[in-house]
Amino acid sequence: MPTASGHTKAIRAKKVIGTTVKDPSGKKIGEIEDVVLDKTSNNIMFAAVSFGGLLGMNEKYHPIPWNMLKYEEDESGYVVNITKEQLQAAPADSIAELTRDDGLAYRDRAFDYYRSPRYWE
Amino acid sequence: MPTASGHTKAIRAKKVIGTTVKDPSGKKIGEIEDVVLDKTSNNIMFAAVSFGGLLGMNEKYHPIPWNMLKYEEDESGYVVNITKEQLQAAPADSIAELTRDDGLAYRDRAFDYYRSPRYWE
Repeated sequence: MPTASGHTKAIRAKKVIGTTVKDPSGKKIGEIEDVVLDKTSNNIMFAAVSFGGLLGMNEKYHPIPWNMLKYEEDESGYVVNITKEQLQAAPADSIAELTRDDGLAYRDRAFDYYRSPRYWE
Repeated sequence: MPTASGHTKAIRAKKVIGTTVKDPSGKKIGEIEDVVLDKTSNNIMFAAVSFGGLLGMNEKYHPIPWNMLKYEEDESGYVVNITKEQLQAAPADSIAELTRDDGLAYRDRAFDYYRSPRYWE
């Protein structure tokens, strides 16, 4: 999906990391901890997002398909259209677990859970 | 291309950034400054690499196709098979210039220069 301004197609990982994640109402619900990349292809596997502000303090990160993060320039961050209830039931784990075994298990679970179109099929 | 150990398919951007880049002889020639991602697709556009150690102090970064960075676990870094002369003549610029106008200009120039197969065609 094209970004609002059309000027942010090329985005630096350093700028993505630490960026605020908001819900559609504009409320801050999380932050991007990291972006998981596939070394053997040219693909972004998923973003690892913390939703501690919404779900309470915990050490888990949610794997979120890249295309679910909508960049909003005036919001200075990304908007995701996911409810608190959906996040509470969503796949989440430590970063080490998210990336274990090539990251495929959590990638597949996340894409299935959010019904995101699989970029690899 | 699969990695040596097969265990590093899923790699965190935070771990890629700052990683050493070496030539095939094992000599350190540079460092990964950042990874440029495409927000409108699931693709990694290119890595932004500094080769200051090899080319001398300067403010420029080289856009390097992601598939040219071969991860070597025992080398604790990435190996690129590019000579100093090739790097001296290669496309390079400030990070702002590399990512301007959706990053396409430098991406295309880099893939052409290194004769890397275009992931987008």
